[in-house]
Amino acid sequence: MASTPAQLVLQTLQYRSTISGYSSALFKAVKEMYSFLSLSSFPSYPPPTPPPLAIGHHISTYPVNDHAITRYTMLYTSRHRKYHSRLSESISYPVTGVRCRDAQTRPLRACLGRNLKPCMEDEKPIKLPESYAMNGGDGTCSYAQNSSYQRGAVDGAQELIKEGVAAKLDIKQLSSSSSLNRFCIADFGCSTGPNTLLAVQVILEAVEQKFKSEKLTAQLPEFQVFFNDHILNDFNTLFQSLPPERRYRAAGVAGSFYRRVLPKASLHFAFSSSSLCWISELPEEILDNNSPAWNKGRIHYTGARKEVSEAYALQYAKDLDAFLHARAEELVGGGLMALLIPAVPNVMISSETTIGTEIDLLGSCLMDMAKMGSFGEAKVDSFNLPLYYPPIEELEALIEANTSFSLERMEIMNNPPKHVAMPSVRHRTLFLRACFEGLLENHFGSHIMDELFKRYSKKVAESSFTMNPDNDKSIFMLVLLKRKSESPETDSP
Amino acid sequence: MASTPAQLVLQTLQYRSTISGYSSALFKAVKEMYSFLSLSSFPSYPPPTPPPLAIGHHISTYPVNDHAITRYTMLYTSRHRKYHSRLSESISYPVTGVRCRDAQTRPLRACLGRNLKPCMEDEKPIKLPESYAMNGGDGTCSYAQNSSYQRGAVDGAQELIKEGVAAKLDIKQLSSSSSLNRFCIADFGCSTGPNTLLAVQVILEAVEQKFKSEKLTAQLPEFQVFFNDHILNDFNTLFQSLPPERRYRAAGVAGSFYRRVLPKASLHFAFSSSSLCWISELPEEILDNNSPAWNKGRIHYTGARKEVSEAYALQYAKDLDAFLHARAEELVGGGLMALLIPAVPNVMISSETTIGTEIDLLGSCLMDMAKMGSFGEAKVDSFNLPLYYPPIEELEALIEANTSFSLERMEIMNNPPKHVAMPSVRHRTLFLRACFEGLLENHFGSHIMDELFKRYSKKVAESSFTMNPDNDKSIFMLVLLKRKSESPETDSP
Repeated sequence: MASTPAQLVLQTLQYRSTISGYSSALFKAVKEMYSFLSLSSFPSYPPPTPPPLAIGHHISTYPVNDHAITRYTMLYTSRHRKYHSRLSESISYPVTGVRCRDAQTRPLRACLGRNLKPCMEDEKPIKLPESYAMNGGDGTCSYAQNSSYQRGAVDGAQELIKEGVAAKLDIKQLSSSSSLNRFCIADFGCSTGPNTLLAVQVILEAVEQKFKSEKLTAQLPEFQVFFNDHILNDFNTLFQSLPPERRYRAAGVAGSFYRRVLPKASLHFAFSSSSLCWISELPEEILDNNSPAWNKGRIHYTGARKEVSEAYALQYAKDLDAFLHARAEELVGGGLMALLIPAVPNVMISSETTIGTEIDLLGSCLMDMAKMGSFGEAKVDSFNLPLYYPPIEELEALIEANTSFSLERMEIMNNPPKHVAMPSVRHRTLFLRACFEGLLENHFGSHIMDELFKRYSKKVAESSFTMNPDNDKSIFMLVLLKRKSESPETDSP
Repeated sequence: MASTPAQLVLQTLQYRSTISGYSSALFKAVKEMYSFLSLSSFPSYPPPTPPPLAIGHHISTYPVNDHAITRYTMLYTSRHRKYHSRLSESISYPVTGVRCRDAQTRPLRACLGRNLKPCMEDEKPIKLPESYAMNGGDGTCSYAQNSSYQRGAVDGAQELIKEGVAAKLDIKQLSSSSSLNRFCIADFGCSTGPNTLLAVQVILEAVEQKFKSEKLTAQLPEFQVFFNDHILNDFNTLFQSLPPERRYRAAGVAGSFYRRVLPKASLHFAFSSSSLCWISELPEEILDNNSPAWNKGRIHYTGARKEVSEAYALQYAKDLDAFLHARAEELVGGGLMALLIPAVPNVMISSETTIGTEIDLLGSCLMDMAKMGSFGEAKVDSFNLPLYYPPIEELEALIEANTSFSLERMEIMNNPPKHVAMPSVRHRTLFLRACFEGLLENHFGSHIMDELFKRYSKKVAESSFTMNPDNDKSIFMLVLLKRKSESPETDSP
């Protein structure tokens, strides 16, 4: 079954035009080629098969003098994260001759003939990885160190959560289905750092207070807290940051919250903050250059044609519905859910929000780098941030469409605005970097990150618009929901 | 409040003699010294405070010509893990002059005078870190890739678990306390890799089969699985290896299983394999050179004075009692627990088991390196592996001492012996490295690991004893326990 390098390169090229997800056959072909060429630097040969940690890959082939270089790049996950918290790391395997000193390496153009079609790596859009996460660790660029703005939302929600639990948590109702000897809390999209720990503590104390106020202290249940985030979230860092003196049993749950991650009717309080702005996948049409929703030259819907933002809005609607459906199954009847959702005022068009212009600035930095030759412009066309900020009325309509919950409270929060939570250009830059670096690296490679954010930092500093507090229109909505009981309500009118 | 470098060195030296755990004051002192000397290479200055990931530190001061070098080493955790899975990494901060080109650095002996007491870093034993774990990731030296021997135990237990569940799981009893709409399984000491996933699958299928055999398929509960291990376990890798098509909700639980980690009466099946040989801490007396149990020149109790193995046995007894006590609280009445425990035959003295001689060989490699000057012999004296292999009768007595459980089955398992599970010297070496490297690095530093295991590999290859299958006397015990109901048994006699 031995193939010549030429045959293997051909196989690789054939795959190149068809693959979109991970292809084990491709990996095998590259592995065989590697073996054939006796390259010893392939890490841990044979490579781990199946490679569960590969979150993406790309292949590029280009001619160098009389030779052909095919480069296979696999994107790996956070295990390789460095101190300053890189989400992913490219491992490049030069799979043919030029760079190898082995006797078997030789010019390949002759073997390949006209079948060799040199092409650039930014030709084909790379799909959003199934899982992505905020920057891990607790280094300079980590989410743990750069989430003071998001913390403001949790801080601002403290009193609202206390009031909500005091007014709406019905201990008798919760105890009716099964004995309430443990009270389960989950934070969906917890990431790492102090915010999730604070939120959990606030909820726990509010529930304890409710038991006390009803003279049920003796029946106070044991608390179990589930910390949920994407599979690539840095749970190791999260676990290591759990306070030793905590009054709850902690567990980590890895997986997208747009599906069910906990058993049915096992949860009493669901929480999510700063997470229900991430959509689960990019609308296909914004990557399709034959569609009116093709988002050329931009990385988000702000300032784009309305077809683009409509495509985003549609995906958001699907995702929020999936979220509410999954939580409705997980929560017991009478269970509460508090959501802190990044949103925009109804009258805003989103390019007027600072978050819009921040992302626009980031996109323009990428276009600048493309124009300077760091990568092709098509590379920017094929990148879009999976983020949507719903207008308030749209959000309310989506939530009310789910009949498993009653909407108990919904209001604009009074959290500290960006210029207070992040007073300097450095803060603003690290805020974006901690959130977006993983996705950017996955698409553009880690080598451009420092330059990209240096450029971004410069643009922010020079922007009279972005740093002006009056232009910060981004808001957080607090939404408090209560899971209806499965059985018809027996309350008298 | 500025201090001179001399004062700061003095402060550091003062602390040195008193600290045993992590000292924030010490960290502050070193940080200030660092700042004073204007050293820019301190990672992420100011350093993260509190540094939750520091699992230990040591300080050494030694004279070089007219200068003093004080070196502060913090041991960090797995975030820094490289592809080939190092558990921890030493970051050394040279805190005084010699190595610095700064104008402020100058000979310090003059400032310090007679207060400077040069000392070697191996003078003081370093306490076992609170948390340690098998090598993470899935690289060459990872536990995930080097646990075929442990896998043999899980393989060998499959039929026994199926039989145990079929014969001993009482669905009616489990349903009596609360509705059995979810069935919770936990693996205590799961580590990473395929073994824990296999074990969970075996248990899940056995329970499903039991429901089927009792014609209760319609009542089949949803499964929730808790994967437990030390806080430094590589949960990121574990989560990423979970099979997407699994039929259970997964959660990770970080913390020592010698304490409770799950809510009371929340668990239906507890499992643990190859983990109940790790003791929670080293007996103090084996580190005390005034005690008859001082374990000089060895890293384990094999071949040592009986006081040493008695100290280990006592700690093991305490730990196993704590384990059973914690599990008794977590399991519901009627819940089952299957334990696969590394042990030794009653008649063995443990130096005759291969595991004994393997650790002896490792210890002798360390002594060889000490004699060659890699470190002081005291450094070996102060290192001991926290492992104990109980003789069968001793194990049985310890288990029966806990009255919350009934002992349903206990037998020597028929798992593949070491020469089958690990046919080559390379396998044998990586087996030990995957398990012990974290602890060894923590004490000796990562720089000696390659040499140590190269030496070890050579010794194993040259040992006619170790590689002879007839000398492999290590065994696994299967122990099946059932949680008694809290209420008095109402069975008629």
